[in-house]
Amino acid sequence: MIMWISGVIDSLLPPYLRHENISRITSDGIFITDRRSLPFKEEEVFCHDYAEAAVAIKEMVTQGGGPLEVALNTILFTYRKDPSLLDKAVFSLSAARPTNTTMKRELEALMKEYRAGGDIEKLIPAAFERYDKLYDRISDVGESLIEDGDGILTTCFPEHTFMLSVRKAVLKGKHVSVFVPETRPYLQGAHLTEPCLRAMGIECFLITDGMAAHFMREGRITKYMTASDLALEDRTVVNKTGTLGNAIAARYYKIPYYAFSLGLDKGKTHDDIEIEYRSGESIKRIGDVQIASEEAVALYPCFDIIDSELVTGIITDGGVI
Amino acid sequence: MIMWISGVIDSLLPPYLRHENISRITSDGIFITDRRSLPFKEEEVFCHDYAEAAVAIKEMVTQGGGPLEVALNTILFTYRKDPSLLDKAVFSLSAARPTNTTMKRELEALMKEYRAGGDIEKLIPAAFERYDKLYDRISDVGESLIEDGDGILTTCFPEHTFMLSVRKAVLKGKHVSVFVPETRPYLQGAHLTEPCLRAMGIECFLITDGMAAHFMREGRITKYMTASDLALEDRTVVNKTGTLGNAIAARYYKIPYYAFSLGLDKGKTHDDIEIEYRSGESIKRIGDVQIASEEAVALYPCFDIIDSELVTGIITDGGVI
Repeated sequence: MIMWISGVIDSLLPPYLRHENISRITSDGIFITDRRSLPFKEEEVFCHDYAEAAVAIKEMVTQGGGPLEVALNTILFTYRKDPSLLDKAVFSLSAARPTNTTMKRELEALMKEYRAGGDIEKLIPAAFERYDKLYDRISDVGESLIEDGDGILTTCFPEHTFMLSVRKAVLKGKHVSVFVPETRPYLQGAHLTEPCLRAMGIECFLITDGMAAHFMREGRITKYMTASDLALEDRTVVNKTGTLGNAIAARYYKIPYYAFSLGLDKGKTHDDIEIEYRSGESIKRIGDVQIASEEAVALYPCFDIIDSELVTGIITDGGVI
Repeated sequence: MIMWISGVIDSLLPPYLRHENISRITSDGIFITDRRSLPFKEEEVFCHDYAEAAVAIKEMVTQGGGPLEVALNTILFTYRKDPSLLDKAVFSLSAARPTNTTMKRELEALMKEYRAGGDIEKLIPAAFERYDKLYDRISDVGESLIEDGDGILTTCFPEHTFMLSVRKAVLKGKHVSVFVPETRPYLQGAHLTEPCLRAMGIECFLITDGMAAHFMREGRITKYMTASDLALEDRTVVNKTGTLGNAIAARYYKIPYYAFSLGLDKGKTHDDIEIEYRSGESIKRIGDVQIASEEAVALYPCFDIIDSELVTGIITDGGVI
């Protein structure tokens, strides 16, 4: 069972983002909530060991901030079973999602402390607590930017920092509504963001990916806030496909665009950004349903680069940059 | 059987847009190709009379320019069966799709000529020929705007004028590729536009509705061209949801945006534009597949208003306005 006490941050979050609903360990293995079947089925994938957990991460059982929590839990489970396997576990987990640099960095720092005599039983709960506190500080900054009456557009699944910002704003008595693009092809907006907001009692509207400009023109969207997969020091943001078009529309209608970041990617430049193209086949299907001709050529650039002139500010635990 | 000779325009069009593939009549009734099941199944809906044809139009068996062709064929069929039913037929057909002002205007003009002694057997083929010639002239203008090497973005299903423009450009030896957003919720881009372009041998790429800005930023999209549901004299355009966001992105990247129009809506103003909201339920489903929680609130504004400062030009048979 989970060894640390979930703090106030965990209780403020929507159920999908609470620690035990992302992953948990028992003496038998690692349980990972399968985000691929949310919101229709709440199922866990069971992994006997780190190797199976790495495969689950690779197969997108969880995504966004999920792999980091799975990895931390998997390290704790592996340590309890056989500490001699820890290096192999770190290697497998890091290799399972090469673009998730936060997970890799976190696991390497953890192993460094362990080798210097740290206790894994204490280091893992401390890591979770550190992230909770980081989310708390960042969402204080996010909350301060939200005004009473705001209609906030997002894109994809902005997870802890955005959800906590909106929740805190509402708890302070601000009336807020959120516009959620479905985010094709994987539909994270429809499958994760909308159910999370609704579970927190936040007014939210599901729209298609082409509709945000319409609601900006009507004055119903007054802020644009997303997560970021990468944020450079010059304020260039990399985030899920669809983020760029909305940022341009926001600029056109003089609506501020803020991206949340757990930490700027210091020292990185535009040359380090490589936009991954995934198979266009995922565009030709929705789940098992074919929506385009088999012969169609579909393109799927996963991420957008949002140039700094389109970014009003990056929300970090140190304030708005 | 169809009485008129399809001209060169019909042969240049992709199969889905050829007259006999939109609708046809026999001595028994009216056949309408069911666009709802394209491109997966090529099926016709059979209607015994004008009343059934009106129901088929109402139920979206065909859309875009389809209802006009069905209505013309239905008038010819009705005339042959019982000319005394013509007024009722015109009323039923016009009421089946109140937003389709072209169909209503055309049927009223036709009846005026008929009452003045015109022969329906000649008036109907003449009406088809008039549209073919109109498409021909407009697409000459459209073709002249396309340059060798262009990557053209569209939105939704731009039908005859756009398809002919691109076809003519390619026949003149220009290399052209087209980027086709799938156009949620009804997926006209994936179901109709992409198969039409591919059938004409035009290089085309299916993308999701949030991806156009990415390809503009990369320089792969160099023109933006759509149809228009309405075009005011001040160059304001009304077109399917998603058109506005792409027009704003085009402006940001200095890419020209042209809308095709069969004729400006003279005398109409912004006050005449009412944006129809359809049921959000169609956003929560793709065909029979549920993609969002039953409890989600989805919004579906059908059309976008594209303000004139975003419109480079309107392509009409009289040239670019």
